[in-house]
Amino acid sequence: MLLNCDIGESFGAWTMGLDEQVMPYIDQANIACGFHAGDPLVMHNTVRLALQHNVALGAHPAYPDLQGFGRRPMVCSPEEIHAMVLYQVGALGQIAAAQGAKLSYVKPHGALYNDMMRNEAVLRAILGALGQTTGKLALMAMTTADNEPLKVLCAEYGVELLLEAFADRAYDENGYIVPRSIAGAVHHDSDVILSQAKAIAEGGVIQTISGKPLTLEADTLCVHGDNPESVAAVRTIRQALMA
Amino acid sequence: MLLNCDIGESFGAWTMGLDEQVMPYIDQANIACGFHAGDPLVMHNTVRLALQHNVALGAHPAYPDLQGFGRRPMVCSPEEIHAMVLYQVGALGQIAAAQGAKLSYVKPHGALYNDMMRNEAVLRAILGALGQTTGKLALMAMTTADNEPLKVLCAEYGVELLLEAFADRAYDENGYIVPRSIAGAVHHDSDVILSQAKAIAEGGVIQTISGKPLTLEADTLCVHGDNPESVAAVRTIRQALMA
Amino acid sequence: MLLNCDIGESFGAWTMGLDEQVMPYIDQANIACGFHAGDPLVMHNTVRLALQHNVALGAHPAYPDLQGFGRRPMVCSPEEIHAMVLYQVGALGQIAAAQGAKLSYVKPHGALYNDMMRNEAVLRAILGALGQTTGKLALMAMTTADNEPLKVLCAEYGVELLLEAFADRAYDENGYIVPRSIAGAVHHDSDVILSQAKAIAEGGVIQTISGKPLTLEADTLCVHGDNPESVAAVRTIRQALMA
Amino acid sequence: MLLNCDIGESFGAWTMGLDEQVMPYIDQANIACGFHAGDPLVMHNTVRLALQHNVALGAHPAYPDLQGFGRRPMVCSPEEIHAMVLYQVGALGQIAAAQGAKLSYVKPHGALYNDMMRNEAVLRAILGALGQTTGKLALMAMTTADNEPLKVLCAEYGVELLLEAFADRAYDENGYIVPRSIAGAVHHDSDVILSQAKAIAEGGVIQTISGKPLTLEADTLCVHGDNPESVAAVRTIRQALMA
Repeated sequence: MLLNCDIGESFGAWTMGLDEQVMPYIDQANIACGFHAGDPLVMHNTVRLALQHNVALGAHPAYPDLQGFGRRPMVCSPEEIHAMVLYQVGALGQIAAAQGAKLSYVKPHGALYNDMMRNEAVLRAILGALGQTTGKLALMAMTTADNEPLKVLCAEYGVELLLEAFADRAYDENGYIVPRSIAGAVHHDSDVILSQAKAIAEGGVIQTISGKPLTLEADTLCVHGDNPESVAAVRTIRQALMA
Repeated sequence: MLLNCDIGESFGAWTMGLDEQVMPYIDQANIACGFHAGDPLVMHNTVRLALQHNVALGAHPAYPDLQGFGRRPMVCSPEEIHAMVLYQVGALGQIAAAQGAKLSYVKPHGALYNDMMRNEAVLRAILGALGQTTGKLALMAMTTADNEPLKVLCAEYGVELLLEAFADRAYDENGYIVPRSIAGAVHHDSDVILSQAKAIAEGGVIQTISGKPLTLEADTLCVHGDNPESVAAVRTIRQALMA
Repeated sequence: MLLNCDIGESFGAWTMGLDEQVMPYIDQANIACGFHAGDPLVMHNTVRLALQHNVALGAHPAYPDLQGFGRRPMVCSPEEIHAMVLYQVGALGQIAAAQGAKLSYVKPHGALYNDMMRNEAVLRAILGALGQTTGKLALMAMTTADNEPLKVLCAEYGVELLLEAFADRAYDENGYIVPRSIAGAVHHDSDVILSQAKAIAEGGVIQTISGKPLTLEADTLCVHGDNPESVAAVRTIRQALMA
Repeated sequence: MLLNCDIGESFGAWTMGLDEQVMPYIDQANIACGFHAGDPLVMHNTVRLALQHNVALGAHPAYPDLQGFGRRPMVCSPEEIHAMVLYQVGALGQIAAAQGAKLSYVKPHGALYNDMMRNEAVLRAILGALGQTTGKLALMAMTTADNEPLKVLCAEYGVELLLEAFADRAYDENGYIVPRSIAGAVHHDSDVILSQAKAIAEGGVIQTISGKPLTLEADTLCVHGDNPESVAAVRTIRQALMA
């Protein structure tokens, strides 16, 4: 079970995230590519930091929306999404190549990620881009109770799939994470988070918000480096997974 | 003698340049990379158009300045310039790779081009980036009466140099183009333009604005596709060069 | 019956619209405010041009989306919409004030306009902003077969309502314009356009796409200055309305 | 002696500055207007916070440069500067007006501020804009040993001048602040800062970096709210000034 984390979300004079603190504990860095965060110099420094810790490099492309941090749903055509994914993946890929490194996967960010999970045209636009990228870039997407449709589509485009799960989010019976607007959607108790992380790592049977068992297939857990508490949680999860 | 032209300078709903009309007559397309013009979809369509006409692909990176079209001098650190060149080259390179093509050179745009010609730190930042790009990307820069310092620096970074001259601009005795603010700086007479183009192609001896002979070493001529007149001029130059 | 037109949609080095040609024939200029088009200098020059022709000044605020020209639906919170409308109205209003003029109305642009017509929370956010603007700024919105709900809401916020109709768009029986994806949605025949303009001006009874009569209440007709044909249509409509 | 502070420099998801902590101790808030920092909602919330503490509202316009935080020198024409100052002042002014408040002054930010102090064409472009703003907006500018030229120009445009000095920066004998690149340019010792603040407040005689006495005329001291140390310094200065 790997740990992935959104990284490199500073921009110009603004700092976000405790990248240096969390990097030692993760395996995969989802690096912002300039559309929602991350200017070229931030990207360069983030790649260097990830390489120092042997962390795999992933592109974290988004809708062009600095003001909304890529979280605002925005309707773009499949052609636009295809081109903007190539653009961002290429920009980060070249910055990595200049340091002798390669990207290994792509995880869309924010609203683009959500749209990809809901809208097949968006998913196909992204897969079409990934199928054309230099090297073999996997797609990181959200696991649910039924990943078969996602697997079929990835296979159609020749794109490897990395399934991610969340240790700090409650799931419903269909294996979807419960929207933040609902009480209990986000786990704040560190024991609950750790316990869900271990359950996913050990076989994938967790308890849904309604109390039923749910089996989640997952390659990687999404963790956070926003603040000292979340970094502490990542360190704890890392230690538990290594034990 | 090749012909290069700034291309792909539309953005979103705004169209600029007669790209389809001029593309058949040029050899090298300097393609905007999103910082002064050219959004991802425009870049995708521009690459396709260039490939249809067997035109070599060049990245045309700029300062981050949509409002000023990259023409506003802007002070960026060498580290920032290094990273923003890699970013833009990578973005266009991946869009080209998705269509099975590669970039062959980089020509900085506008104020970044002018700063590169005047400021060694800017030139070194760009060369440092090009020396690290995937594949071998040449630098297109302005020829003057003495290209030796430029050649020495390019050699230091292992970067091939493409020297460009202008058929429609008057030169001073040091081989610099005369600033637009001075009368006679821009040739408008098509015979004069054609004659200067042929002179540069046939050995490089042209007449300066003060009437003296000047020898210019050049690999490529910069031409324009802004309007019907400039496209007609390109067609005429192309025919003369083929004759 | 007044004529309103989107104006000032150039940006930096990019030109859009035949503003100088169409300005003599319109009454109300919907001036872009920098978020989808129109940089500060373009806005300044557009205000001056409008004042030369005694055209009323309207703010044309949009979502922050230069790349998509404000046409991409984008989910923003009511608080964000409220603030971004005030921001854009204020920016244009100050540029107008510097020339001794005042704005008289606000017409949201593109996706923001469509969202306002469909989503009461968006409409309320806009009305809340207009109710707080300096001076009395009216809201320009789309007329339909039933404008009562719109009128009630405008009254609640103390905002005057200007209803606009389209001469070149087919209407359905509910008084909504037919989506462009449907055949016959846009009138291209200049006689049909002129006839619909006159019908709306003379009492508002037009024929829907299904052939039934429809009565439209309207204060202003939306016309276009994109190209020579549309400018010619505006001139013809203007002459017919004056006759 | 008043205290002014750059405020409202967050943007979208990024937070900068301890605005809530420093606001109780200052008199004048230089509020970012969206070009280097500060989106519309940030501006709205910043105005509200300032009004809660009876702090005067100042616009803090900048070059259009989010990535460089308005600190990159950028060559814009006087016409562009004139329009972009009106734009930003108007945007903030309308957001303030919606809360029943008015701006009282304008302090250009970063590179625009430095260019204004060095380049008369830039200063005139800004004064021309302020002379045309609604209400009477003063210009906040840097005091030096000879403010006469600045006063003459402000009078020519009918613009009130507010002179600001710095408690934490060393001055040279011409009354210019010593560039940060020189050792001793920035005072870090809180006693030195406090002592310089009191000296400026009590008559303006301070000691230059070379040890000579210098008289500085000042209406306001520029203080900082970036971090807990700078906020503590502001509180100390405030207490000393009130004593």
